[in-house]
Amino acid sequence: MNGAESLVHTLLLGGVDTCFANPGTSEMHFVAALDRIPGMRCVLALFEGVATGAADGYQRMAGKPAATLLHCGPGLANGIANLHNARRARAGIVNIVGDQATYHDPLDPPLASEIESFARPVSAAVLRAARPHLVGGDAARAVAVARGPGGGIATLVLPSDASWDEGGIVAAPLPFEAPYRVADDAVADAATVLRSGKPALILLGGRGTLAEPIASAHAIAAATGAKLIGEGFGARIERGRGRHPLDRVPYVVEMAVEMFRDIREVILVGADEPVTFFAYPGKPGLPFAPGTRLRVLARPDEDAADALARLADAVGARPVPPPDHGPAVSPARGAMTPDAIARTLTALLPEDSIVVDESISAGFPFYSGTERAARHTWLRHVGGAIGIGLPLATGAAIGAPGRRVVTLQGDGSALYTVQALWTQAREKLDVTTVIFANRGYAILRMEMAGVGANPGRTALNMLDVTEPDVDWVKIAEGFGVEAARAETIETFADLLELANRRSGPFLIELVLP
Amino acid sequence: MNGAESLVHTLLLGGVDTCFANPGTSEMHFVAALDRIPGMRCVLALFEGVATGAADGYQRMAGKPAATLLHCGPGLANGIANLHNARRARAGIVNIVGDQATYHDPLDPPLASEIESFARPVSAAVLRAARPHLVGGDAARAVAVARGPGGGIATLVLPSDASWDEGGIVAAPLPFEAPYRVADDAVADAATVLRSGKPALILLGGRGTLAEPIASAHAIAAATGAKLIGEGFGARIERGRGRHPLDRVPYVVEMAVEMFRDIREVILVGADEPVTFFAYPGKPGLPFAPGTRLRVLARPDEDAADALARLADAVGARPVPPPDHGPAVSPARGAMTPDAIARTLTALLPEDSIVVDESISAGFPFYSGTERAARHTWLRHVGGAIGIGLPLATGAAIGAPGRRVVTLQGDGSALYTVQALWTQAREKLDVTTVIFANRGYAILRMEMAGVGANPGRTALNMLDVTEPDVDWVKIAEGFGVEAARAETIETFADLLELANRRSGPFLIELVLP
Repeated sequence: MNGAESLVHTLLLGGVDTCFANPGTSEMHFVAALDRIPGMRCVLALFEGVATGAADGYQRMAGKPAATLLHCGPGLANGIANLHNARRARAGIVNIVGDQATYHDPLDPPLASEIESFARPVSAAVLRAARPHLVGGDAARAVAVARGPGGGIATLVLPSDASWDEGGIVAAPLPFEAPYRVADDAVADAATVLRSGKPALILLGGRGTLAEPIASAHAIAAATGAKLIGEGFGARIERGRGRHPLDRVPYVVEMAVEMFRDIREVILVGADEPVTFFAYPGKPGLPFAPGTRLRVLARPDEDAADALARLADAVGARPVPPPDHGPAVSPARGAMTPDAIARTLTALLPEDSIVVDESISAGFPFYSGTERAARHTWLRHVGGAIGIGLPLATGAAIGAPGRRVVTLQGDGSALYTVQALWTQAREKLDVTTVIFANRGYAILRMEMAGVGANPGRTALNMLDVTEPDVDWVKIAEGFGVEAARAETIETFADLLELANRRSGPFLIELVLP
Repeated sequence: MNGAESLVHTLLLGGVDTCFANPGTSEMHFVAALDRIPGMRCVLALFEGVATGAADGYQRMAGKPAATLLHCGPGLANGIANLHNARRARAGIVNIVGDQATYHDPLDPPLASEIESFARPVSAAVLRAARPHLVGGDAARAVAVARGPGGGIATLVLPSDASWDEGGIVAAPLPFEAPYRVADDAVADAATVLRSGKPALILLGGRGTLAEPIASAHAIAAATGAKLIGEGFGARIERGRGRHPLDRVPYVVEMAVEMFRDIREVILVGADEPVTFFAYPGKPGLPFAPGTRLRVLARPDEDAADALARLADAVGARPVPPPDHGPAVSPARGAMTPDAIARTLTALLPEDSIVVDESISAGFPFYSGTERAARHTWLRHVGGAIGIGLPLATGAAIGAPGRRVVTLQGDGSALYTVQALWTQAREKLDVTTVIFANRGYAILRMEMAGVGANPGRTALNMLDVTEPDVDWVKIAEGFGVEAARAETIETFADLLELANRRSGPFLIELVLP
């Protein structure tokens, strides 16, 4: 057995049975091993950022890591932006990077580079398996890291001779921890604060935004008068009809400051401190009012559901029913406004669908506006590196077969990893992509105002994606995905209904006025 | 004056007047400064790998560096693969990366990351300008590095508050070195070897493959009996009718070994040691015969043209005329073979055109097969990270206005940075792109055989870009570039002639049998 074969066997034993791959010469023995060892689903990407973003989406939905297969330092580098996003979303990934043969690397061949320097900032662990008998053990360690309670990217660098040389040893899976149990003191501390009558806010994030912890948090809020909010960029939120709502911290600093204005106690449950995305001259980086105290009920690697259930008991909270979401909504007609788009989405999101949201500025109203849609899961880009939407949707569809994925996608960001459409076509994934074609980096026009700069002609030229306009229908068809354009809200509804009913991917270019 | 304004002024004083940009929020003040300060041509890319590859192509043709403008760690990461290529091609680039405000970064906002860890492996220098009064000085240092004789990427990290705060100071250009003069000893040593009668080979690379040094090397070879060869992956080679030919070290190891079989002395002129791209089981990493001695006449940062002229004098060489390239060639007719494609290229490459070659396996015969084409410049990908062709062509067209660029491009690699087509359309660049559509990573099928692995069904699925086929005409049109498909060699000739005569970009999808 060679090293590559021991790697594939070890991954499968550890429950890693899906690999998003962009292989090159140094990975050929891994690819060849897949022929001989059944059980690994290998999904080809045409660009590494697609593979890494898909691994993130897969993990968020499947609840276990996928592997990636990348080629040398530059291949890893192409995947870093979405590894950055995955790290911020605390997704686990076994990130396999092929490298030069150990004896060839000192000759400094063209593709040699310092892989570890690229990998460290996005990785929870970086391992290098230099000899075939070490590959299995390192792979088992990588799987344990990626399956751990805090998530994390385990990068495994694999020189080609460690792959092709005989002497591979399959390693049994290592134990990995479930989310840690929150200490009794943290529950008691939170209960004391909530009973104190001080204006308090419970901030949910990470594991805290699944259906059960959100319901517990609502019970606690009803019993104590605490406010409730979700983090601004949530990795996975369960919501829609029959579930409790969860609003989120606004992106715009002034709005976030307003939200925290009367709050004096913030209790974090699976969430990080709500730092603003960027600094702006004269504006705060944290939205809290002076004197606000921050407490942690559950860290991201702790069991938020259990902690909230115990906190509910401690404050004597009783379950509250989800709100009455009223009668079903029909698609909007008339003007193409953000509210009309949200209404149409509300009407047409299929039951148990997965919404992937990289709609950026175009989509700020969509989240709150779709509260009354059928039960669904909402995945957002967490790390701020644009170009996650199409890959994330690709991985989510593979991680949750049978559920329709609806991607709400800004046009500027979609162009970063547009190659994902091809993988959606090849794998016949049930993904509906809605491109919000505002033909520019609308967020940057907003940001430019936010930093106090006033764009002139040259600057605007850097913010607009016009002259020429991008034709999304042609691009989608070029990658093998059927597509159509909607210029009215009625056409949008027709296409969305059609797309969601069919099998396989479809793209709608929604031309914004 | 704020820091961003001092940066733009300092770049312009240093002769850096072109910027390939992918700006985000932290770069808004740089973008705003461009409105107020005339003289900087700012070219928008839709993906950072386009910006960095274009900066490489610009430098290779303009002979001076461009700036890039990238957004935070993930934006830099997206540009790394082509920065890796640029580093291997010894292109100079002033690589500007915006970052979080200095006081915001410690809060670990979503886009924060260890930029320096990403940058170091590809950078000759990494600078961080933390305060506005330091920006100008650091920019001048970065320009001096990028303009230096060894080339190099100078990464300048720019926190947003250093951009927007007042206190910027414009810095005068620092002196930078011309290529160093080769020591007399090195010339004398090479002359001794060449006169010794031992079988010798002169290996040209870097600055050694411009027209003048190639002519000198031919004179030396004629006088001494030495063989002459160019490095396998040359950054810039001047060739065609009226010039001396220069063959290159083959990619396939066995062929390279055969070429060096009878050689005992190798003299490097601007070239690196000809290491094989990858190791293969049981094959050597260096193609030399045992006992071959390697000497350096000129390092890559030395003046190859001067060294060769002095060596010619030392061995008493007399100029030899370039070969008679015979009558003009007409386009091929009949079967679509690699030779037929090369013949058609030979017939139709415009005088003083620039060929950008990322044709990978499809294009192995094109270089030798186009020796008799009109005078032209040949740019190849040097670092081995695929996805350089379309960006390199974009930058070359901007760096050498008035010259037609013809890109010979494999389809698999083109998909990595396909967004470059949009920049070609927006800037109305005279680029003809020929996509060799073999619908797969043909090089990997070859490599798989090279490492002794035998692909089965699963493996082949990782090497083919089929099911669905990519429709290049639609993709090009989607990005605003006119395009057409050629399925016969005659149609190819017609389209190539048409494309080369017109203004602006055009793409030909050449379907290979």
